[in-house]
Amino acid sequence: MADQQKLPALVQALRPEVLDFEPYAAGLSIEEIRERYGLECVIKLASNENPLGVPPLVQKRLKASVGFAFRYPKPDTPRLCKAIAHRMGVDPSRVVVGNGSDEIIDILIRVRAVPGRDNVLAFKPCFSMYKLQSKFLGVEFRQVPVEADFTYDLDKLAAAVDEHTALVFVTSPDNPSGYAPKASLLEKFARSLPETCILVVDEAYMDFAVPEEEYSIRNLLGELDNLVILRTFSKVYGLAGLRLGYGMMHPALADYLWRVRLPFSVNLMAEEAGIAAIEDTCFYEATLKAVHTGREWLAAQLSALGCTPKPTQANFILFALPEGCPLSAKDVFEKLLERGIIIRPLGSYGLPDSLRVSIGAERENQAFIDNLKEVLA
Amino acid sequence: MADQQKLPALVQALRPEVLDFEPYAAGLSIEEIRERYGLECVIKLASNENPLGVPPLVQKRLKASVGFAFRYPKPDTPRLCKAIAHRMGVDPSRVVVGNGSDEIIDILIRVRAVPGRDNVLAFKPCFSMYKLQSKFLGVEFRQVPVEADFTYDLDKLAAAVDEHTALVFVTSPDNPSGYAPKASLLEKFARSLPETCILVVDEAYMDFAVPEEEYSIRNLLGELDNLVILRTFSKVYGLAGLRLGYGMMHPALADYLWRVRLPFSVNLMAEEAGIAAIEDTCFYEATLKAVHTGREWLAAQLSALGCTPKPTQANFILFALPEGCPLSAKDVFEKLLERGIIIRPLGSYGLPDSLRVSIGAERENQAFIDNLKEVLA
Repeated sequence: MADQQKLPALVQALRPEVLDFEPYAAGLSIEEIRERYGLECVIKLASNENPLGVPPLVQKRLKASVGFAFRYPKPDTPRLCKAIAHRMGVDPSRVVVGNGSDEIIDILIRVRAVPGRDNVLAFKPCFSMYKLQSKFLGVEFRQVPVEADFTYDLDKLAAAVDEHTALVFVTSPDNPSGYAPKASLLEKFARSLPETCILVVDEAYMDFAVPEEEYSIRNLLGELDNLVILRTFSKVYGLAGLRLGYGMMHPALADYLWRVRLPFSVNLMAEEAGIAAIEDTCFYEATLKAVHTGREWLAAQLSALGCTPKPTQANFILFALPEGCPLSAKDVFEKLLERGIIIRPLGSYGLPDSLRVSIGAERENQAFIDNLKEVLA
Repeated sequence: MADQQKLPALVQALRPEVLDFEPYAAGLSIEEIRERYGLECVIKLASNENPLGVPPLVQKRLKASVGFAFRYPKPDTPRLCKAIAHRMGVDPSRVVVGNGSDEIIDILIRVRAVPGRDNVLAFKPCFSMYKLQSKFLGVEFRQVPVEADFTYDLDKLAAAVDEHTALVFVTSPDNPSGYAPKASLLEKFARSLPETCILVVDEAYMDFAVPEEEYSIRNLLGELDNLVILRTFSKVYGLAGLRLGYGMMHPALADYLWRVRLPFSVNLMAEEAGIAAIEDTCFYEATLKAVHTGREWLAAQLSALGCTPKPTQANFILFALPEGCPLSAKDVFEKLLERGIIIRPLGSYGLPDSLRVSIGAERENQAFIDNLKEVLA
């Protein structure tokens, strides 16, 4: 999309935050790699998608819904909110749905942070959307490094909060490391924040934590007015392509998010799919089983190859190559690509020596390990 | 979603633009009216949706795609952009797709307008999204009234532009009136603007204009760096529920929009549907025929009932009730609702004496006229 022509006057008049904006770095797609290397079979373990695909009940419901796509959705998607609220054990007035949790992240920052005055805080590395949407708004983005072993020092994070910290984002389990702080630690941190500072706990991968209740602080929603929990349908529910995420928060805050959000941001098919995905509890259980089994197996195999997989509560594993390996992480990523295996290099996270692999289906995990073994040999 | 509890400190810390934010007023849904009045058959002519539904080729393609919805879309949706560019006769580098044109409107304002300094200009009344997204950003929104007959005085609009006017929005054909200025008038206005001021011509309904080339100025895209044309798949392509709109603009401006937009804002089904909708030229032609025939018939019937339908180039008609009618527009709207006919009252557009009806399928148009006749009798 780069422009080869001379820049028009208009472009010079764009906001300065925009002029040096670096876009989100997405995982490569299967089609790209298929075309680039002329491969038939390509395995993608790069974007933490569901290893089992789309829930069968969702597929059935979507097929039955295609004839209704000429209608606008209902702006407040009440059936979906009710289904989410019931599943999560909260009142529907606490739920706000979005076009992926990306949209919720964007509007949370926009309703609270004042450019030139406020700041947004997160660990480093973190999911890049927190930084991108802060920058787009023109709000200072601060980061506190995670520890060398990727754990969080929440006291350090608390020390970086000042009177102008509008929001703090904490991802649990973390992406790209898979680390999740215990709920008790997070609760202590949450209670230390000024009540005007929004704590956003991004639980995109929380379903995969074992046991979940030891890590999630969503039961504090009724107690802490400034707590927001984000969840997504892109991972455990297998709906990344339909774009559906949500936040749970104080009803008064939710009310303002509903007011400012684009009225039809959640598409009709996503609403149907979300409802069906919650109903398909068999698929949910099968996904958890596949991820738990696959992650144990992959970690063991990576260790056996001399790699260092980090402990993970998510549906992916961050790992470093064997000590003394003559190949760089980028080399290994590219050699795997040539063989039709897409994993995620972590340069865009500031971790050039690490790689991230999603837990796939059994044959995908096997193919990844087989190919990695050959690449490292 | 209103909050009954006392407002937490957090809410008082939200941005002032947000605290008094009035959300978008959407058309009522069929389900709402069915439930409210216990009706079996409800006809919705309130949101200018396609009278023929979803294109058959789209339905087929969507059914075949449901198994892929667990994958993230490609951020730059290249196949869709190519299809749009080919259809519109522009280079793909000029096309930016969004989660409805709503998203394009939002990011256009955000890349250019600086809160506290710049202003955004449009006619009054206009599509409320221009105002809502300006307000959300904290940018002054200025309006110049349309003429009493709903035509545009573009000289008046030009006179309201100052050095801090970042964007001007012009809807053509206009919503809610259906009026479209001739391309020659719009071209003169476009050429009068400072080159750092973005002119956004929202052509959501342009496909329905006859003849289109007398009204659209999209052939000026190569000449005017500051011209943006918006189009949508929600109307003539029958995809309102899938959320797909796009802008055509200078490639350098498009490049910046691609950078800042949420990477997966267009969902995978919308991409498939958009490509198929462009291919389904039979459906496109049938839609135009249904709208042209229906609009002529409805206008004649409304006139025969003593109403005053405005000339329209869109797939809806704005009309006033017969002079001396004892019922208000709101009364008529509500009496039609009770009978299962949803049209659009225009209070939220500042036009409490007018009503807007979408061109429906033949039987829907007939039912609307039959019921209106009874209500007015």
